[in-house]
Order: sequence, then structure tokens, then C-alpha cells
Amino acid sequence: MPENFADRLLAAITAKGSPVCVGIDPVYEKLPEDVRRLVESKPDQPQQEKAAGQQDSAGRPQDAEGMEKVAQLVAMGAYCRIILELVAPHVPAIKIQSAYFEAYGAVGVAAYFEVVKAARKLGLIVIGDVKRNDIGPTAQAYARAHLAGPDAPDAVTVNGYFGADGIMPFVEVARAEGKGLFVLVRTSNKSAADIQDFADASGTKFYRHMAAQVAAIGDGEGLTGKSGFSCVGAVVGATWPGEAKELRQAMPRQIFLVPGYGAQGATAADCAAAFDRQGRGAIVNASRSVIFAHNEKQYAGVDWKQAITLAAQAFAKDIAQAAASASKA
Amino acid sequence: MPENFADRLLAAITAKGSPVCVGIDPVYEKLPEDVRRLVESKPDQPQQEKAAGQQDSAGRPQDAEGMEKVAQLVAMGAYCRIILELVAPHVPAIKIQSAYFEAYGAVGVAAYFEVVKAARKLGLIVIGDVKRNDIGPTAQAYARAHLAGPDAPDAVTVNGYFGADGIMPFVEVARAEGKGLFVLVRTSNKSAADIQDFADASGTKFYRHMAAQVAAIGDGEGLTGKSGFSCVGAVVGATWPGEAKELRQAMPRQIFLVPGYGAQGATAADCAAAFDRQGRGAIVNASRSVIFAHNEKQYAGVDWKQAITLAAQAFAKDIAQAAASASKA
Repeated sequence: MPENFADRLLAAITAKGSPVCVGIDPVYEKLPEDVRRLVESKPDQPQQEKAAGQQDSAGRPQDAEGMEKVAQLVAMGAYCRIILELVAPHVPAIKIQSAYFEAYGAVGVAAYFEVVKAARKLGLIVIGDVKRNDIGPTAQAYARAHLAGPDAPDAVTVNGYFGADGIMPFVEVARAEGKGLFVLVRTSNKSAADIQDFADASGTKFYRHMAAQVAAIGDGEGLTGKSGFSCVGAVVGATWPGEAKELRQAMPRQIFLVPGYGAQGATAADCAAAFDRQGRGAIVNASRSVIFAHNEKQYAGVDWKQAITLAAQAFAKDIAQAAASASKA
Repeated sequence: MPENFADRLLAAITAKGSPVCVGIDPVYEKLPEDVRRLVESKPDQPQQEKAAGQQDSAGRPQDAEGMEKVAQLVAMGAYCRIILELVAPHVPAIKIQSAYFEAYGAVGVAAYFEVVKAARKLGLIVIGDVKRNDIGPTAQAYARAHLAGPDAPDAVTVNGYFGADGIMPFVEVARAEGKGLFVLVRTSNKSAADIQDFADASGTKFYRHMAAQVAAIGDGEGLTGKSGFSCVGAVVGATWPGEAKELRQAMPRQIFLVPGYGAQGATAADCAAAFDRQGRGAIVNASRSVIFAHNEKQYAGVDWKQAITLAAQAFAKDIAQAAASASKA
């Protein structure tokens, strides 16, 4: 039997000293100027070379605009690898956002799996933020694509709208391969309330109903590790600390993947609600505030690599304290 | 302004005479024997060539197993193109299932966009069944990746768990580009009930709540076409005809994408509930029962191309009658 994902993740958190995860959400326009400069057209190139672009059948660019797109992607890939090396000493995990790679087509998907591989080589736990969802053989195909084998992430995010039919195919791969999944329960965005606060006659809200389904699935045979946590976790936004506290009680064996810190407005104090009395059971994600730290006021004038390192360290320290405070509360 | 997606879809349905969609869910093992034979290892090849496989960073195979995977994908791609040519005279639309292509990694994604392009060249309306979902810039990246530009599908499926924050980025691209989306409301699978039947104090179920959100979004400025239908549609499973009938009343301007016919057990009579009194407003999907018709008992001994053509014709006729019966009911 491969080692349980929850145990692996908790061991990595202990080793690095903080329950945090850096979100890799690369956007070319936000890269540091000297990285972008490597790619952008030199002024002596005639403008007409940048004609409207098309890709060929394999996703290869056929003209100047396509070439520029690939150059952007190469720069993004190089940037991601540098980020991984900068943050690996300070954080146990990264979360890589598929959408920003898919935006570049098939070559972007190749780059996504490159970053996954590079992160795993550095000993980082890799969460593929793909939010896939479907049923039966289709969900199995997604689970294989994104979770099976050594070159796939250690865990993925899953949208549970289909119920158990949509979640179980991911659970089967996770169980067999020592991998994990995080099912969306309470998302960090504002309109989450419009959907997820729909309440039954007793006042129980829909996200609690989803939580109960996920907790029941997560209690299945062979899913809970020595740590007492299941490889089936939940996404619980830090922007809703009241809900997080309530869910922490309702889902004692789910590790929470917690988005919303930093750029989305949640503080470390808000994140504290996601941890249990031992300061365990959650991993907090920050994306933009770390990987684009050079664009933040507080790091003005600081070299971008230094800014990212400092931001990752500050983030890790901030959340380690929040987890510790939860254990004292 | 580009033509409204709902208007384009309804015009295509009128032109072909039936509101149907063939689902492209390719699985190598189910291809006709003579297609598979083109790919499978010849018996005189030594077995040790099929060593455990790895792909390189760009998703290119590095050994025999990887080569076999690519050969499978090539066979699948060729098969998909033949299916498109066989069904194009009989059906207005296809729905292409991303998961089966993603299972082959980056090269699979390239093949997916190849099939999209081939289908659009044949004048088919193409629905990308990707069920993507996220918020803000991430959802925008997904929307651009899967919906923007001439080589992307005409419409995609979207999971609405995030609420408006997750749906609007797709709506913006759809509005600007004359494209569409279908938001999951009532899915065709059994465990849909466990999640989507969660009811409030008045007995209103969650899927009705989601329907109301989708209908409100779909009424937004510039989204409803001359036909009276919106480019924001809904996924409503044929396996729940009672719910479909109710939703037809609740969402008069949403075109329903209806899965569940054929292999999933719903009949044409079940599908009738999704149509309005004019026999409009829905498009019924069948996947396995058409594209793998050669594996069905009723087509035993029939050439596989002939079997697929006959199955597509029978499917189109069956659903055309169901739509006509709805207009008489």
C-alpha cells in the first residue's frame, strides 16, 4: 500500500514548519520586467510580423503571434521553476492552477505537467487545482489524467455537484495511488453565499449538506491515514471564518485546503478557524501575494526573487502562528 | 455583433430536422476491431519493447508504451473524424468530452482541439463538454481557453457551484463572441438526487434554486436572441423527466442540453419533457449508443460505419418525434 496522502501532507507540513501552500497562478503580464523583457519583441522588428495568429493541429504556432504566445509560455514556465526553487525551503506544498496553462492550449498543458514534475522533484507536495467533475467513465478518465502516476499531482480539487457518482472515481485513484482530493465545500468568493447558503427547513445550509456527503465518503475503507485524517479533504474559504469554524467541527477527518488569504482579503486570524485544537487539519493557500510579491507596495525596490522569498517566509510565519493560536484557543 | 448562439443552434436544428447532438466520448478499447488493428503491436514484435512508459516534458512519449499511447490517440482521432463525417448529414451538433482526450496528456488536448476544428469545418455546432468552474481571473482564463476564438467550441458546459462569480466570466466571452454555455442544473446520474434535491422550508429543491440563478443570469443584456432563447442554457438530465418538465416551466429562455438518452437509460418519451409547446428549447445528447453502435446487439454483423450512420439516423428520428409530440401535448 502506498503511504496515505493526508499522512504525507502532514509530515511535509511538520518538516517545513508551516501549513501553507503557494498557489502557482502565472499571468504573463504580471511577471517581473526583466523576465518579460527576454520575450517581448525588440523595437527593430517590423510590426507586420505580428499578424493575427493561428495554431496548427498540434497546438504549434504558425506565425508571429503564435510564436509570441509560446515565448510567453516559455517565460512563464521558467518563472514557475524559479518560484518553486525560491519557495521550496519554506513551504511544504504548491497548488498549480490549470486554467492559466490551458489558456495557452495543448502546449500550455504540457507546461503544466512540466511544473508538476519540477515541483515533485523538489520534494514539494503538489495540488493540481483543476476542479474537474463528471460521472462514471468520464470522471475516471479525469481522475487518471490528473491524479494517476508519478508525473501527476499528489492531489486535485474536485467539484462535487454530481454527488458520490462524481467524487468516487477520484477517490478510487487516490486510494490506489496514495494520492488525495479536495472537494469544494465552501468557496472563498462572494457569490458562494447565493448558492451554498441555500437552507433547509431546519436551517441547515447547502454547504453543510455537501460537507456531510464529503465527510461520509472520506470515512471509506482505506482512506484515513495514521494521522487520523482522510485523503479526501475539502476546500473551505478563509473569507468565511464563521463557516470554517463550524465545518471544522463537522468534518474532523478532512484536511481543509483554504483559499482566500492575502489578495482575496482574509487574514491569518480568519484562517485560524480552519485548524483543529492541535493546530492541524488545514493548509492555507496564497497565490498572487507571493508569486507576484514584486508588484506589492511593501516590496517596492526589492529584487523580485528576494521579494518572493520574503513574501513566502512572511506568509509561512503568519500562518504557522495562526495554527499555533488555534491550538491554544 | 456576432449572431446569438441560441439562434445559431436553433437554426442548425431546423436545418437538420432534429434537436440532437452526438457525444464524442472516444475510448480506444471500444473502437471497431479494424481500427484498433491498425495500431496494435504485431505479434512478431518482441514483448520487451513494451517497457513501462514515460513521457518527456512536452508530453512526447519516450518509449514503446508511450508510442503505443500516441498510436491509440492517432487511431481515436481518425475515428472521431470519420464519425463527424458520418453523422454531419443527420445531426446539427456534437458534444465533445474533454476527459477522454485529457487522459492522453498534452497531446490528447491537441487532438481535442483538432476534433473541434474538424467538426466546425463540417458546419456542426460544437459543444465542448469541459464542466470548467472557478472564479474571477481564473474563470476568465478557462473561458478564453475553451470558448474564445474560431478554433474553440461554440459552447461549453459549466459547473455553477461558485454562483454568479463563476458563471459570469463565461457569459462575458459568450456575449462578445456569439458563443454559449450550458450550466449544470439537474444532472442525469443517480446520486444527483443526494445533492440536488436538498430542499428548503417551502419544499423548493436546490436544483430549482440553481435554475433560478441561471435563468436570471441568462436574462442579462445582449444574451437573448431573436428566437427568444438565451445563449446561457442549462444541463437537464433526461433520466429525471418530472424534474425536466418542471424546469421547462421555470426556465423558458434556457435551451436544455439533455444527457441520459440511450446508454444511460432514458427514452425519447422521457426526453419530451425538456421541450416547450413549440417542440423547441432542448437538444438531446447520445454518446455511446451512436459512436459505438457497432458494439450494440441490434447492429451485430453490420459494418461499423453503417451501424453508426443507422444509429445516428434512428436517434435523430426518435428525438424529432419526441419534440413533435411535446408540441402536441
